[in-house]
Amino acid sequence: MNATRITVWNENWHEQNDPDVLTRYPDGIHGAIARGLAGHLGAAATVRTATQDQPEHGLTEEILAATDTLVWWGHMRHEAVADEVVGRVVEHVLGGMGLVVLHSGHFSRPFRRLLGTTCSLGWRNDAAREHVWTVSPRHPIVDGVDLPIVLDQHETYSEFFDIPAPDETIFLSSFSGGEVFRSGVTFTRGHGRIFYFSPGDEAYPIYHHPEIQKVIANGAQWVAQEGRPHHAPAVVHLAEPEAAAAS
Amino acid sequence: MNATRITVWNENWHEQNDPDVLTRYPDGIHGAIARGLAGHLGAAATVRTATQDQPEHGLTEEILAATDTLVWWGHMRHEAVADEVVGRVVEHVLGGMGLVVLHSGHFSRPFRRLLGTTCSLGWRNDAAREHVWTVSPRHPIVDGVDLPIVLDQHETYSEFFDIPAPDETIFLSSFSGGEVFRSGVTFTRGHGRIFYFSPGDEAYPIYHHPEIQKVIANGAQWVAQEGRPHHAPAVVHLAEPEAAAAS
Amino acid sequence: MNATRITVWNENWHEQNDPDVLTRYPDGIHGAIARGLAGHLGAAATVRTATQDQPEHGLTEEILAATDTLVWWGHMRHEAVADEVVGRVVEHVLGGMGLVVLHSGHFSRPFRRLLGTTCSLGWRNDAAREHVWTVSPRHPIVDGVDLPIVLDQHETYSEFFDIPAPDETIFLSSFSGGEVFRSGVTFTRGHGRIFYFSPGDEAYPIYHHPEIQKVIANGAQWVAQEGRPHHAPAVVHLAEPEAAAAS
Amino acid sequence: MNATRITVWNENWHEQNDPDVLTRYPDGIHGAIARGLAGHLGAAATVRTATQDQPEHGLTEEILAATDTLVWWGHMRHEAVADEVVGRVVEHVLGGMGLVVLHSGHFSRPFRRLLGTTCSLGWRNDAAREHVWTVSPRHPIVDGVDLPIVLDQHETYSEFFDIPAPDETIFLSSFSGGEVFRSGVTFTRGHGRIFYFSPGDEAYPIYHHPEIQKVIANGAQWVAQEGRPHHAPAVVHLAEPEAAAAS
Repeated sequence: MNATRITVWNENWHEQNDPDVLTRYPDGIHGAIARGLAGHLGAAATVRTATQDQPEHGLTEEILAATDTLVWWGHMRHEAVADEVVGRVVEHVLGGMGLVVLHSGHFSRPFRRLLGTTCSLGWRNDAAREHVWTVSPRHPIVDGVDLPIVLDQHETYSEFFDIPAPDETIFLSSFSGGEVFRSGVTFTRGHGRIFYFSPGDEAYPIYHHPEIQKVIANGAQWVAQEGRPHHAPAVVHLAEPEAAAAS
Repeated sequence: MNATRITVWNENWHEQNDPDVLTRYPDGIHGAIARGLAGHLGAAATVRTATQDQPEHGLTEEILAATDTLVWWGHMRHEAVADEVVGRVVEHVLGGMGLVVLHSGHFSRPFRRLLGTTCSLGWRNDAAREHVWTVSPRHPIVDGVDLPIVLDQHETYSEFFDIPAPDETIFLSSFSGGEVFRSGVTFTRGHGRIFYFSPGDEAYPIYHHPEIQKVIANGAQWVAQEGRPHHAPAVVHLAEPEAAAAS
Repeated sequence: MNATRITVWNENWHEQNDPDVLTRYPDGIHGAIARGLAGHLGAAATVRTATQDQPEHGLTEEILAATDTLVWWGHMRHEAVADEVVGRVVEHVLGGMGLVVLHSGHFSRPFRRLLGTTCSLGWRNDAAREHVWTVSPRHPIVDGVDLPIVLDQHETYSEFFDIPAPDETIFLSSFSGGEVFRSGVTFTRGHGRIFYFSPGDEAYPIYHHPEIQKVIANGAQWVAQEGRPHHAPAVVHLAEPEAAAAS
Repeated sequence: MNATRITVWNENWHEQNDPDVLTRYPDGIHGAIARGLAGHLGAAATVRTATQDQPEHGLTEEILAATDTLVWWGHMRHEAVADEVVGRVVEHVLGGMGLVVLHSGHFSRPFRRLLGTTCSLGWRNDAAREHVWTVSPRHPIVDGVDLPIVLDQHETYSEFFDIPAPDETIFLSSFSGGEVFRSGVTFTRGHGRIFYFSPGDEAYPIYHHPEIQKVIANGAQWVAQEGRPHHAPAVVHLAEPEAAAAS
């Protein structure tokens, strides 16, 4: 099998504006995620990063065409992502590129465009304890993950999470305030697979947690179609039935 | 619309063997559930009860044929439900009778037969606090229910709950020990609808809680096909295509 | 129960540009659909029409706010629907307005925005015979419909139909050329329900067919939340857990 | 990756009772299916066969424990499959063994037990033409399959097919009589995956068709969890929450 070509994208804003975040993630959130992926996947993946402050946000046509899985982290700068790049990402996902959306990326423009809903939710940031459980114990995304994952301090996300019915619900989280959240869900859009996974706030060292890294690595592989060119479904003018019958 | 004909069934064991339960539910668990249904549905329903200690467990062919929704509560005496009655209940559900399964009824023979899985789960009974949330806020089963429902003391049920993927997940619960559970789920089997709702242990006065009663009342109506005879799907030897084309 | 307030919308292009269509549908396609709805629903519905050539395409904020179900027919003029109206329709659906999308409306801008995919399909227009079957025989949308519906001459629509996994598949069609199509599917987006139903080309008198009318009438009722104001889900900043526990 | 250990099971009745079938399938239907699997999977699988006339129907505990995927073909002798073997097969599927059920196996006892419904359908055997299409073009079961598959002569299977809502619908078939059928569907039950695929009547040489063989080979791999012991989900008495928190 070919190595999975993963591009980790980050808006890279907190790192420039909040010294605490840079202390927590000296190489940026993207750097931490990329390191976790490389560590868990080894030779099975090639991992690079891209950030919003780069030309075309680092997501040129060439880079997306050479990406099997795009991992997306954004929070403060969703609306500053250019229309053209949003459209390009959506087109590649519909064409078969895998997409892993993390945490506050639920409000990112590509995710909302692909799902069609508001993607709104409830939240409170007071360092609650989160337990992450699975309802799909044999799903490849859960493979080798020790559950429940207990995050001693994390932001609370809560239902109602305004998403379409997922293809599969993989993880459910509870929070010490009593809230629940569908923290790991999958979707198919066009030819592409999407995995949303909520753990990962900039204010906590979540992406250094080995089980969280393992989930993201599994997800990045599960959404990938290694090496396959991206072509979105298109209208087909059907041949005459005689031709079809002869095929 | 015709009134919904509801039969509330109870194994009626705790009531005979545990004075605390009888103090909590002087008319039996079935009596409390029936009173809640009658109170919430009024003239929209006719409610009767049946118990395992009656002849044919109170579930004769005549009674099931005149039941739009069967509500099932059992815990200690699942294996003592007769094969013939299990088969009869399953046949009526496949034929269109609604089924509401409560709490420990997840292990009842009709439920397991209809779902095909072990229906096993995790549990601990130490009076944890449960929050019941919805992920389907406009589903008729949620109509008029004030959420989250907070149960100050309840038995803990936890994932992994071994059920097939539900048609719809309506409620998710969290527990103060950190557990999560799919506490309200629906299934279609044959022509019948099934609603499983987990709150309701014999050791707590759950069925006196007005929001819990409201959910059960909504569920009993949602699974019902009022007045429609029960006929399970059957093999059809198709007519010749010419006949089909002429229809 | 309140009457269902239905607005039937039509781009109204073929009627102005193709004499055959006007012969087939003297009151327009919208007129025929509205008449079918009124005939089948009687006092249970109030039906009005709106067309693309009206100011704001006939879909002002006031009209949408007073619409429980919007029925959409469009084919040649999708791209001429104004951004503002598209956004308004989407917002009302997310807020709870029902949406019935017919035939070539699969490519309408509101439908594509709500689903997030290309909604492309295969097609050929050579008057094939279509059989419409159900895989959900007790769904309210099928109630009272005599199946299979046989359309002696219709446009062929074929898989692959690029839509997200539907909540429920209601109808499957076969065509005499050998094609198959998911011809009746439902989706939930935000608080709103959507029903897509493919029969209904301008070149055939499909909307005069009583079974087709019955399906559309059932669908218009099934997606409706009569009288309920439209409010899309929004972000909730959760109260402190103590407050939640006291509720 | 380990080779997939596949056991192809056949009731082996037509081969003993119908000379035409033996002419069509000199090594039995199981022999033809096994040869197709071996041809398509090569070193990626080890394939053996078992038949109903063997002791314990050839499905001993030892054999099932060493089987990653069980392929099931039966038609005339469903009721003669021993209770003990049915229970054993079900238990292994719930524990993670993959199951591929072919054609008239929709009425086999293990399949009905795992699904909980009647699994009834419409049928007519008059050598209709069948077209097999996909609605999940990037599913691994479709990989490398040239679609639509056209079967010039086959038995007609028709909706309504009384199965629970599948996890995924992979294939839809149309027949020249106008019928439609969900011809490829997947389910998860317990820890096991199930793939039902309808093509394959004893009266036609379907299992010699290379595209049909390819689908079965893909399915046999997709349901497999190579080398993993089978353990059905079981009740868990949860540890005290302090212990959970410390984990």
